Amino acid sequence: MGSEIELKVGIVGGTGYTGVELLRLLAQHPQAELKVITSRKEAGMPVAALFPSLRGRVELAFAEPRAELLRGCEVVFFATPNGVAMSEARSLVDAGVRVIDLSADFRIRDVAEWERWYKLKHASPELVRDAVYGLPEVNRERIRGARLVANPGCYPTATQLGFLPLVEAGVVDVEHLIADAKSGVSGAGRKAELHLAFSEASDNFMAYNLPGHRHWPEIRQGLAQVARREVGLVFSAHLLPVIRGIHATLYARIVKEVDFQALFEKRYAHEPFVDVMPAGSHPDTRSVRAANLCRIAVHRPPESAKGADTLVVLSVIDNLVKGAAGQAVQNMNLMFGVAETAGLTQLPVVP
Amino acid sequence: MGSEIELKVGIVGGTGYTGVELLRLLAQHPQAELKVITSRKEAGMPVAALFPSLRGRVELAFAEPRAELLRGCEVVFFATPNGVAMSEARSLVDAGVRVIDLSADFRIRDVAEWERWYKLKHASPELVRDAVYGLPEVNRERIRGARLVANPGCYPTATQLGFLPLVEAGVVDVEHLIADAKSGVSGAGRKAELHLAFSEASDNFMAYNLPGHRHWPEIRQGLAQVARREVGLVFSAHLLPVIRGIHATLYARIVKEVDFQALFEKRYAHEPFVDVMPAGSHPDTRSVRAANLCRIAVHRPPESAKGADTLVVLSVIDNLVKGAAGQAVQNMNLMFGVAETAGLTQLPVVP
Amino acid sequence: MGSEIELKVGIVGGTGYTGVELLRLLAQHPQAELKVITSRKEAGMPVAALFPSLRGRVELAFAEPRAELLRGCEVVFFATPNGVAMSEARSLVDAGVRVIDLSADFRIRDVAEWERWYKLKHASPELVRDAVYGLPEVNRERIRGARLVANPGCYPTATQLGFLPLVEAGVVDVEHLIADAKSGVSGAGRKAELHLAFSEASDNFMAYNLPGHRHWPEIRQGLAQVARREVGLVFSAHLLPVIRGIHATLYARIVKEVDFQALFEKRYAHEPFVDVMPAGSHPDTRSVRAANLCRIAVHRPPESAKGADTLVVLSVIDNLVKGAAGQAVQNMNLMFGVAETAGLTQLPVVP
Amino acid sequence: MGSEIELKVGIVGGTGYTGVELLRLLAQHPQAELKVITSRKEAGMPVAALFPSLRGRVELAFAEPRAELLRGCEVVFFATPNGVAMSEARSLVDAGVRVIDLSADFRIRDVAEWERWYKLKHASPELVRDAVYGLPEVNRERIRGARLVANPGCYPTATQLGFLPLVEAGVVDVEHLIADAKSGVSGAGRKAELHLAFSEASDNFMAYNLPGHRHWPEIRQGLAQVARREVGLVFSAHLLPVIRGIHATLYARIVKEVDFQALFEKRYAHEPFVDVMPAGSHPDTRSVRAANLCRIAVHRPPESAKGADTLVVLSVIDNLVKGAAGQAVQNMNLMFGVAETAGLTQLPVVP
Repeated sequence: MGSEIELKVGIVGGTGYTGVELLRLLAQHPQAELKVITSRKEAGMPVAALFPSLRGRVELAFAEPRAELLRGCEVVFFATPNGVAMSEARSLVDAGVRVIDLSADFRIRDVAEWERWYKLKHASPELVRDAVYGLPEVNRERIRGARLVANPGCYPTATQLGFLPLVEAGVVDVEHLIADAKSGVSGAGRKAELHLAFSEASDNFMAYNLPGHRHWPEIRQGLAQVARREVGLVFSAHLLPVIRGIHATLYARIVKEVDFQALFEKRYAHEPFVDVMPAGSHPDTRSVRAANLCRIAVHRPPESAKGADTLVVLSVIDNLVKGAAGQAVQNMNLMFGVAETAGLTQLPVVP
Repeated sequence: MGSEIELKVGIVGGTGYTGVELLRLLAQHPQAELKVITSRKEAGMPVAALFPSLRGRVELAFAEPRAELLRGCEVVFFATPNGVAMSEARSLVDAGVRVIDLSADFRIRDVAEWERWYKLKHASPELVRDAVYGLPEVNRERIRGARLVANPGCYPTATQLGFLPLVEAGVVDVEHLIADAKSGVSGAGRKAELHLAFSEASDNFMAYNLPGHRHWPEIRQGLAQVARREVGLVFSAHLLPVIRGIHATLYARIVKEVDFQALFEKRYAHEPFVDVMPAGSHPDTRSVRAANLCRIAVHRPPESAKGADTLVVLSVIDNLVKGAAGQAVQNMNLMFGVAETAGLTQLPVVP
Repeated sequence: MGSEIELKVGIVGGTGYTGVELLRLLAQHPQAELKVITSRKEAGMPVAALFPSLRGRVELAFAEPRAELLRGCEVVFFATPNGVAMSEARSLVDAGVRVIDLSADFRIRDVAEWERWYKLKHASPELVRDAVYGLPEVNRERIRGARLVANPGCYPTATQLGFLPLVEAGVVDVEHLIADAKSGVSGAGRKAELHLAFSEASDNFMAYNLPGHRHWPEIRQGLAQVARREVGLVFSAHLLPVIRGIHATLYARIVKEVDFQALFEKRYAHEPFVDVMPAGSHPDTRSVRAANLCRIAVHRPPESAKGADTLVVLSVIDNLVKGAAGQAVQNMNLMFGVAETAGLTQLPVVP
Repeated sequence: MGSEIELKVGIVGGTGYTGVELLRLLAQHPQAELKVITSRKEAGMPVAALFPSLRGRVELAFAEPRAELLRGCEVVFFATPNGVAMSEARSLVDAGVRVIDLSADFRIRDVAEWERWYKLKHASPELVRDAVYGLPEVNRERIRGARLVANPGCYPTATQLGFLPLVEAGVVDVEHLIADAKSGVSGAGRKAELHLAFSEASDNFMAYNLPGHRHWPEIRQGLAQVARREVGLVFSAHLLPVIRGIHATLYARIVKEVDFQALFEKRYAHEPFVDVMPAGSHPDTRSVRAANLCRIAVHRPPESAKGADTLVVLSVIDNLVKGAAGQAVQNMNLMFGVAETAGLTQLPVVP
């Protein structure tokens, strides 16, 4: 489709890190025009006053979140805390505006389970059924037609893309998957919380939320869908003293021997944003920094050793790009028939 | 034993990070007197010129590595690259000097396996048999009488202390242990290597040496000894953008249900340098920064879930202290009947 | 004086970084016994539950801030936000308890100026006159007899110690001093504030509070006192992505040629906690990390060049130690006739 | 000029940080086609094998540095250590290839002074006369016609742009300029040197090369040119624990009162890559991270105070972009009549 398309875009709640990353990407998108950005708290403030990195490039000011403003858009992104989109998406969807929700509100199909993990009463259970889980590598065709996309979480994106070929092919024990995942601090959001302070998180490393992280049910749901059965997953989240980046180290017991490198390469051969690295690689988080990419490497312990039946998969993304705003733009591109890579071709920033 | 003891101490090769950490600890040790420190490369240079942090506290200069100098000591630490102590320890041991080797030369009892991993011909295979593996929590009594102590590696210390109670008690599947370990950059030593440069390692995270890290055979040997059978272990090393600290996230399949928290607490109840944290804890690496401590937490996934038969153990140390120089001093204390905690009571530096 | 002395110590408000640093130092002090630590907010919580780094070493719990508890102490430290000690110190001082205030309440002798900068009405102007400014290198004798010590700020300590020999000797233009100072993030305290978050402050650097930082009047007062005239000072504060450490780069126009290196060496020859580095040195902040030390180097531009009449002095401290808790303990030692270095002999932690 | 232009580009020595940054920018430049990249050391290796961040986007391999390969290009960038371009540029220039040298070889017009600072005999003194100093904000018209551009150093770019309006307007004392400059570690290049190691440079800060940094004569030359007289400059370099970014804090004594904010705004009103921030701002280094931008703020101490006649200017750039590769591309654009901003519109990456 031609570059003549100019999508009218709105953002609800663009004051967090996924919000400013969306702004960065959309401001450079050849076929998107940012029309509205709302924030109750910052209404009236120019976006570039809050985020000086956008000076001279984003002229909008934050607006009060009024539905009529947003209804003039073709697509609206929710970059809000959990619990906002579930109330506000309904009227937009009904008005024909397509919605991409970067929060967790529509990710879990089992509403009771969602309510248990997120400790909220869901405001629009019926919309959950309509929502399409926005992982293009699994749901590309359904995303194209979606009215409402539930953009995946960051850990779930890295973890699912790493396990997917194995689970689809039925070559590992899905009852005993282990994901040892490490996230940069920006994954926790733009928040004034003590444990996220530089003096606490820098030169330091720790696990958190063991054994129960909110992304656990999301990952299990995704993998169960492709396995067509319930899966067992141990998921350990760790806070990494980097700004951006997720590194998931995944462990799976092999039940069927295949050429694992070839399996991954074939599975992702046509994916523009998944890069299967050569055998023996160790992708680092900076190799995807600020880019919409997932890089994956597959490692097989030496066969002679005990414990050699465990496969190790390394999967890295930038949590704010392929783990949030970039994937959201990828979903927008799919929904509007724009080239899937439009606005997402920036190279990683290294060093 | 009284504080009147003053041990005459020598250090071979004190220009690396384990060397300067030994210097920091020994300079503050109430019963040790540093007599000699050798370095071929820096001979003649005052120690405090190389390490300004020691100005006014360490008056020695580096000396040429001459055996007669070292023979005047009661104990000599080797803080040398692998392959040095195996040649030089012999004459000291024969002269009645007790030796603590912080390198890997005497850690692996199977000399052929050592040679395979370290790509060197071992110069003193017969000394390997005499060496005692210096993990006090396992070998305390043998260390007291040892002439030559092989001080454990950093990853092996954190990993073994985390798995030990489980393997001793026979309550987990020892054929499928997984250690997802993360180390601060100082663990790689004081080296001018590109991948250790700030612009490479900072704001970045990656796995390395998959599937074969040199610490793997050391850990397997230690665990096999207490299991009294071969063990299966997947060991993944990662480079963490912190200076000091190892965090090992350990996974083991439960084969027998017990009160795991109680098991750990009982096992380490009398250990001065192992702290079993309250249930639900997530020890961070800074909580042991600059201190001779291993902190451990045990997590059990919720029983209802699939995959709930996997135990998660978190084990943190400062790689330069409990993972190297501190443990070496602890071994020295044991060897000479000094209080085990002498010179090792500094509190962690937080923040 | 003998080691038989055991000082009964209290801390008001020990939940910040200067508080936990005081705890670290006092727990290792040979002649201090921590009797009380108060915190309105954390009353009842064991100190080691808030600061796991102190597990096994500090057994106290935070107590409600009740005057009678504190009156049983010989010395009480205020590690409180500005505006607390000014109200609460009075009754302690009257009860004969000696007080060391780590906040800014008693630092500025001109109460009106203090009120302007700190935006508070001073509760005890009369106590300000009694307070002794606790910079031992200037006021040692007065500190010994003080009932109330105003412990200096971190920037003021590094800056004054760097300028002091020059101003005392009258060899620089005191109307045009420039201090370009950089502080680690812990200097801002243990606070949940967005600009101190890891994702904001890490991999980043900026000036702040130009032109008016609260430490400016404190530095000017201190330098004016030794200059015996008003001084002109441009002071620029910068936020450094390190946890601990202040580096002050000081510029002064030479009005009288002397041997500047010798001037500094002589001035600080007998100071236990000021180290004048050899000519040509560049002290780094880690060379004083976790230690009660100020290291200073003096640089003179090449004489031939234009602008060569400007002297550059580098002065580094750990903001939490010589810039706060360590200096407070040094003051306590002076006040009670204990060896000035007692409890302050820990070596810097490097790397 | 139309987008039909496709410049044939070569790079000599693209294995350093300025090299990979050039590659990142050129790979995204709409009117540049990378034809050759040479490296003696890495000849034969695919660029993307050395820099995985370029996988799938840069297909070239490093070639042996052969002149005939480069002569097929319209423009050749030297991203080589100092001392290479001075020998190799001659033949390219003679062959009609336009050259942009990112090293220091052609920056200093006084060849004797260059030889003193760089400790090399200059191989092409006569080319120095031809070279145009590539600071577009000063030399835009001369750059358009240049055959050989000497791309400025990183410190000199930030420092000159900060002082320029003041020196041009003659409103400050040019005999006593002070630049307190801080640079991220990538400014030192992609090198295996101990002092650049993570464990040395992280959580640390220090000055270096006082009093004599190589960028000092370059800055003085540039400012003297606009002042039309010799200038006095104290220049202090500091190593900042960030990957990218320079922050120059500049001090100048006012000799003539003007509206300084207006002076700067007017001077840079039409500059696409210099952003004068609103009065009272403190630009942080991340606000220009990965972007070709210099942000500047001007601060005037309160008039009442002594020392109030000193102006403080804050100037930040990304040392690899506006301080190196980005400015080089800007120069290329000027030399070939392409839009000056072509390929340089990426927004800063924040957080």
